[in-house]
Amino acid sequence: MNTQTNFDLILFGATGDLAMRKLIPCLYQAHAAGLLHPEGRILGVSRSEFDTAAFLKKVESDSKIHIKNHFSDELWKTFVARIQYLTVDATRPETFLALGETVNARKNTDNVIVYLSTAPKFFTPICENLAAIGLNNEKVRIVLEKPLGTDLKSSQEINAAVGAFYQEKQIYRIDHYLGKESLQNLLALRFANIMFEPLWNNKYLKSVQLTIAEQLGVEERGEFYDITGALRDMVQNHLMQMLCMTAMEKPASLDADAVRDEKLKVIKSLKPLSLKDVEQNVVRGQYTPGEKDGIRLNGYLEEHQVPPESRTETYVAIKAEIQNQRWAGVPFYLRTGKRMAGKVAEIVLNFHDLDNHIFENSQSAPNRLVIELQPTESIRLYTQVKTPGAGNRVETTALSVDMGQAIEGRRAEAYERLLLDVINGKLALFNRRDELEAAWEWVMPIMENWSQSLNPPHGYTADSWGPEAARALLARDGNLWHEEQ
Amino acid sequence: MNTQTNFDLILFGATGDLAMRKLIPCLYQAHAAGLLHPEGRILGVSRSEFDTAAFLKKVESDSKIHIKNHFSDELWKTFVARIQYLTVDATRPETFLALGETVNARKNTDNVIVYLSTAPKFFTPICENLAAIGLNNEKVRIVLEKPLGTDLKSSQEINAAVGAFYQEKQIYRIDHYLGKESLQNLLALRFANIMFEPLWNNKYLKSVQLTIAEQLGVEERGEFYDITGALRDMVQNHLMQMLCMTAMEKPASLDADAVRDEKLKVIKSLKPLSLKDVEQNVVRGQYTPGEKDGIRLNGYLEEHQVPPESRTETYVAIKAEIQNQRWAGVPFYLRTGKRMAGKVAEIVLNFHDLDNHIFENSQSAPNRLVIELQPTESIRLYTQVKTPGAGNRVETTALSVDMGQAIEGRRAEAYERLLLDVINGKLALFNRRDELEAAWEWVMPIMENWSQSLNPPHGYTADSWGPEAARALLARDGNLWHEEQ
Repeated sequence: MNTQTNFDLILFGATGDLAMRKLIPCLYQAHAAGLLHPEGRILGVSRSEFDTAAFLKKVESDSKIHIKNHFSDELWKTFVARIQYLTVDATRPETFLALGETVNARKNTDNVIVYLSTAPKFFTPICENLAAIGLNNEKVRIVLEKPLGTDLKSSQEINAAVGAFYQEKQIYRIDHYLGKESLQNLLALRFANIMFEPLWNNKYLKSVQLTIAEQLGVEERGEFYDITGALRDMVQNHLMQMLCMTAMEKPASLDADAVRDEKLKVIKSLKPLSLKDVEQNVVRGQYTPGEKDGIRLNGYLEEHQVPPESRTETYVAIKAEIQNQRWAGVPFYLRTGKRMAGKVAEIVLNFHDLDNHIFENSQSAPNRLVIELQPTESIRLYTQVKTPGAGNRVETTALSVDMGQAIEGRRAEAYERLLLDVINGKLALFNRRDELEAAWEWVMPIMENWSQSLNPPHGYTADSWGPEAARALLARDGNLWHEEQ
Repeated sequence: MNTQTNFDLILFGATGDLAMRKLIPCLYQAHAAGLLHPEGRILGVSRSEFDTAAFLKKVESDSKIHIKNHFSDELWKTFVARIQYLTVDATRPETFLALGETVNARKNTDNVIVYLSTAPKFFTPICENLAAIGLNNEKVRIVLEKPLGTDLKSSQEINAAVGAFYQEKQIYRIDHYLGKESLQNLLALRFANIMFEPLWNNKYLKSVQLTIAEQLGVEERGEFYDITGALRDMVQNHLMQMLCMTAMEKPASLDADAVRDEKLKVIKSLKPLSLKDVEQNVVRGQYTPGEKDGIRLNGYLEEHQVPPESRTETYVAIKAEIQNQRWAGVPFYLRTGKRMAGKVAEIVLNFHDLDNHIFENSQSAPNRLVIELQPTESIRLYTQVKTPGAGNRVETTALSVDMGQAIEGRRAEAYERLLLDVINGKLALFNRRDELEAAWEWVMPIMENWSQSLNPPHGYTADSWGPEAARALLARDGNLWHEEQ
């Protein structure tokens, strides 16, 4: 870990929700762990007319509460000493001058990180105004927070706008799923071992399931969520990254471009969906009222600030196919939903059926590798073993490891890892432009179909595992979703 | 489970150690579990001039104490009601008459089991005398306890002698290792799953280690042990069975001959050892004085009734090779020893090295499948996972299952399972003649070499992992024994 990188971290949107809930607490953790250069500075900026003292007061009240571990008053004191606040209005160039002076006044800064935790419409003016004060030099790295567009076109526009001022190697596009230990561990599992690789293909695997299920509904975020939907919120980014990590070939190294080249290859190998394919292979769902523990749960249309006629999807299931030698014929079932019956993020690899049964009662599909990212970080390899006693009966058990228990060491939150990687100039866990645009390109037919379709989303009861149509999607291939296996 | 088999179990050597410690307690367990036909009888026989009452007194004092679980006075009472005793002298035909009358008097006996827990020299006269009273009819099954010979010739003689009176399908040769749940589970693991088979060969495995290590010395059994030695006591039977179960091809079914045909194929595929090969590939060891927890441990030559110049091996390590498509080039390292530093029976499959390291510190040999038969019944799949934190470091952990905890159900002792299989006519877990003789044939060059060799056994300190020469045997191939991995 290089702690010798002396940085200025300029945080646009410093008074916002993400900064308060995630970014500042994660920076504190990096500080507490001794991973930040002692002179590294955090420069909070936003339109709000605060001074540093007022900003720190807000940090004290709105951010500190999100620090769950390793809190000490002393460390907190040295941490907040890193923080300054400057009022900057993205659209008013003159407000950038003081920021430029503050940054340029210090000569021993190794790099300047600009974290854009703002609405994308401000990306262009911010970049333009930063460039005007020289803050697009080689020392500068720019971090883009999602949403990175709402479709292929808007994503291309953002990339082009930022690209007009910064080189690709200066641009860090965040997908916080890539910061998760559990997802990175997937690469270790696949590529630092020898026994998984020979099984990791269509000869031995029947299907792959990628799930991100949330139990919460949209809660107070109805206004944002209704113009976003699950496809943009989860599929195009997080599920696509899970897909890439699961399906990619072994990269020549873990260098940023080696990894991202392989991920891009996966996305490029996805069978494009025609508008007609979408009818067949994609299920759009929206939760209807339900009940849990005797408490009534709102349907999506009843949620705060959701228009009563909304067709926004709160659930998506997709059958994707990867057209390469390794994966031809293996369906990748992706799904995500809100108000599901469980909170889980997992990758499930289902092995082919056993054809030759010599035990009395062996299952047709005895093997399944489950890599759970959330709520626990664990690996379970389902296998059949002998049932004790006379006779030749078998039953299913799992070889398993709970990584949280088995592997010591502090598990950083995704954002902490990603912030440190930006500070240290490591691009591997960030999306490259071509990768991001390829992902958008692949999901576009789904959005187009839905915008034209006369069919409303399939309803599914809140606190269920999604619409019946999603079950049918797998049943057509003789498969079941994991919770039913 | 067929409990409708009404049996007479004639137990030769009924007053002996095996009967008291194992057979009668295991029959009690089968009784307690309701697995014995209500009218099944146990007819203890030996030369001793007991009547049933006196024998039961001995059972009460010498056998009951070995019942560790499920004991109840009531069940014990109904169990001992099954037992009768008859004085029979193997070498005096007239003493068999009463036995014949007792057995033949009952018409609803489905089968008659004759368990020969005697010295092998009595096998021929017993069979002859049983035949004379008609107890070699089709209802009779004969169980042979080890030692089944002391070399190929004596084994052939025993088989020929018993074979003169009984057909092969009536003969149940005991190797109690085959009665172990944990060893049977190996077949379930291999053949009721789909993911292990593709890895179970020379393409993915570098070496296989089979270990039966005991912590005890020969204790009071010096007289027996000195004429037996580890090769006859452990290698020719138990380790050979472990080897067969590990290396065999998938049988067409679990029927006795289907399984035994495959096991035989493995033994027949073992590369024969020339006398010279023995020098290279076999290590003979004998323990020397040591110390454990501050207590001095005798060397073998100091043990009770061991001749001071004895060359009997208390440790054997063998590098074996299987000459077939699956295993060519994969050394099978077999070893067993007394006074070892740990008590363990296990099968270790070492995967090949990983050639392409993209993680900073990945091990050259990251994967290992350990199937522990004793002291716990468990499976551990060693694998590398990501070390939490920035950087691309990995470390080793294991996906594991402790079968005792994961799988419910009563685990019968090996002898109980085997006795029930005899009663129910299941031959799969017993050695067939050709299999047994092939195993003897393979170990004969070792015995011949040792009988001619001027080299004494390699010494190893009591409470160690064996002689240095055994380490060298693996080091030559660039390998390490499991405890050093």
